[in-house]
Amino acid sequence: MYFVNMDQDEIFMRRAIQLAKKAKGGTSPNPMVGAVITKNGQIIGEGYHKKAGLPHAEIEAINSVKNKDDLIGATIYVNLEPCNHYGRTPPCSEAIIKSGIKRVVIGMRDPNPKAQGGVERLKQNNIEVKIGVLEKDANRLNEIFITNVTKLKPFFVMKAAMLLNGNIAVKGGVSKWITSEKSLRFSHKLRGLYDAVIVGINTIIMDDPMLTCRIRGYKQPKRVILDANLRIPLSSKLFSKYPNNVYIVTNSNQQEKKRQTLFAMGANIIECDAEKGVFVPEKLSQELLKRDICSALVEGGSRSHGYFLTNNLYDKAYLFYAPKITGSYGAFNVVGADAPYDLEHVHNLKNAKCRNVGNDFLIEGYF
Amino acid sequence: MYFVNMDQDEIFMRRAIQLAKKAKGGTSPNPMVGAVITKNGQIIGEGYHKKAGLPHAEIEAINSVKNKDDLIGATIYVNLEPCNHYGRTPPCSEAIIKSGIKRVVIGMRDPNPKAQGGVERLKQNNIEVKIGVLEKDANRLNEIFITNVTKLKPFFVMKAAMLLNGNIAVKGGVSKWITSEKSLRFSHKLRGLYDAVIVGINTIIMDDPMLTCRIRGYKQPKRVILDANLRIPLSSKLFSKYPNNVYIVTNSNQQEKKRQTLFAMGANIIECDAEKGVFVPEKLSQELLKRDICSALVEGGSRSHGYFLTNNLYDKAYLFYAPKITGSYGAFNVVGADAPYDLEHVHNLKNAKCRNVGNDFLIEGYF
Repeated sequence: MYFVNMDQDEIFMRRAIQLAKKAKGGTSPNPMVGAVITKNGQIIGEGYHKKAGLPHAEIEAINSVKNKDDLIGATIYVNLEPCNHYGRTPPCSEAIIKSGIKRVVIGMRDPNPKAQGGVERLKQNNIEVKIGVLEKDANRLNEIFITNVTKLKPFFVMKAAMLLNGNIAVKGGVSKWITSEKSLRFSHKLRGLYDAVIVGINTIIMDDPMLTCRIRGYKQPKRVILDANLRIPLSSKLFSKYPNNVYIVTNSNQQEKKRQTLFAMGANIIECDAEKGVFVPEKLSQELLKRDICSALVEGGSRSHGYFLTNNLYDKAYLFYAPKITGSYGAFNVVGADAPYDLEHVHNLKNAKCRNVGNDFLIEGYF
Repeated sequence: MYFVNMDQDEIFMRRAIQLAKKAKGGTSPNPMVGAVITKNGQIIGEGYHKKAGLPHAEIEAINSVKNKDDLIGATIYVNLEPCNHYGRTPPCSEAIIKSGIKRVVIGMRDPNPKAQGGVERLKQNNIEVKIGVLEKDANRLNEIFITNVTKLKPFFVMKAAMLLNGNIAVKGGVSKWITSEKSLRFSHKLRGLYDAVIVGINTIIMDDPMLTCRIRGYKQPKRVILDANLRIPLSSKLFSKYPNNVYIVTNSNQQEKKRQTLFAMGANIIECDAEKGVFVPEKLSQELLKRDICSALVEGGSRSHGYFLTNNLYDKAYLFYAPKITGSYGAFNVVGADAPYDLEHVHNLKNAKCRNVGNDFLIEGYF
């Protein structure tokens, strides 16, 4: 009775997406992909892509079926179109064709038109293909990968903790501990979910943060400092742990000695073109992608948020509000950039949702 | 079964509070009071205070009992301590004693120590008195009245619509329609719930609003303009409807001709002491209370919110956020006042809650 109104293809696609999510935060620069193989309405094999360089989900699922004869006439569910090219692994379309699978259900096509072709290849081999099952969920699952290949930039996430009037600090710049312990914990989890954390050099100089993920079981993010003039103090706490994870983006080709010291400490230096002291957005994106920084949590400060927002670099936002309010004169606002003259030129947050995190409020949404 | 764990006194007090609320927004400067009379666990009479000058709730309830013999040995539930003084009506304590009622259950004592005495009078006449049933609800119900008599000021409510970074306008001051139609409707309802709407003169000059309540069935608020130097344009839309409801607070004793014109148009002028062009908070409170403005919705702009916030005048806040964000430089922040140097000096919002109003977010709480 219960299953009468449920689409069987959606049930198995949901499972494929569930499997894909097991590798959340770990597949970069690859997408998250899960695969389920069924026969006569029963699951006979499952798999997911664990990490770049390891087998794709389809291969994992095919390998999980002990009796290969069972694959003949089977259906495979996969949230992303099977690849059709020789990368670090042979094409999945090939493996599916060889296996005897007769039907392929796909969540979404490969967002990179150049990488498409899997569907056509399968069809040429008389395999039935259905595209677009739970497509919205499939898109959301790989929002980072889609942004990387369609916009040629990392998925940039705005993260800020502020007072109810948008202040991120009081006069003089004190900004620590605006929000509660619970929000702080949530923020640390976010650091573990994205490839990198980005802050401007002023945040390093004023707050001297570690920018590590302090939640057990989560990975450490790369830490990127936007520091056009290489002002970073060598005594920054940042260097006290995982210095190899520190990336200093700069446009200063002087201070050779400081550079050498930073290298010796293990830090990485990224040269990036700038115009009038401001990094060229496309160049910054390229440099980060080159280093497999496919997603980044931008934690401020004010000027950094202003830079990313006004250059249309942001994809998503996590805005934490403490239930506190105060005057604004002389304090830093969360977005340090010129206001437009027209309400039509503000940035809209889509699918925005609000929820409680301890005593604080979290508004999240997409740009 | 269902009633086993419910306190009978709480059940009837809840009903008394429910009755009291029927007059929401209409009893000013009096509190909202409801009364329920029971005998043998059955309600035999009910009443509530409808409007200043009309009978108190206890009298309404006693009058609602047809057979006065039924009152002998009955219990009366009332959310506020019965009065003991001759005001516009004789004391309720007297009426209760004469009626033959033998038990009085009270939500909260009169917050004005000078007005207390009802409880003692009842006890002296061998009436059993129970105090503090649903006290928290009774307090919340009459938050305006309590603020008036204990703090000698109106209940001031901060109301603002802003972007996610606290901007209430973009560059040049355009502030209309930041939030959605639904938020606007909600704001209009709020205008109907409080005695007055207050704005600063800059808001009148820049936005030229009507400040009326445009929801059918709600009362029109008084409209108070803080205008120290009497800069109000005589052509303001404000005067096009209900000019008698307009109160201009000023400290300018010049411009006799403009004053006469304003009088002739029907507007009211309130003289209020100011220091360096800023109204003395205690004086402003006094002047408003004198005119039965016991509660007021402060709708901005930036400087007005700054004035009320930094002078600790605010009791409650309704903050609407549109899911939009932009740069802050050159735009008005919701609180136009100096930021403190210390996070300990920010204003905390207690019992703050967040909810959706259309696509917008509403954060409300108490100072």
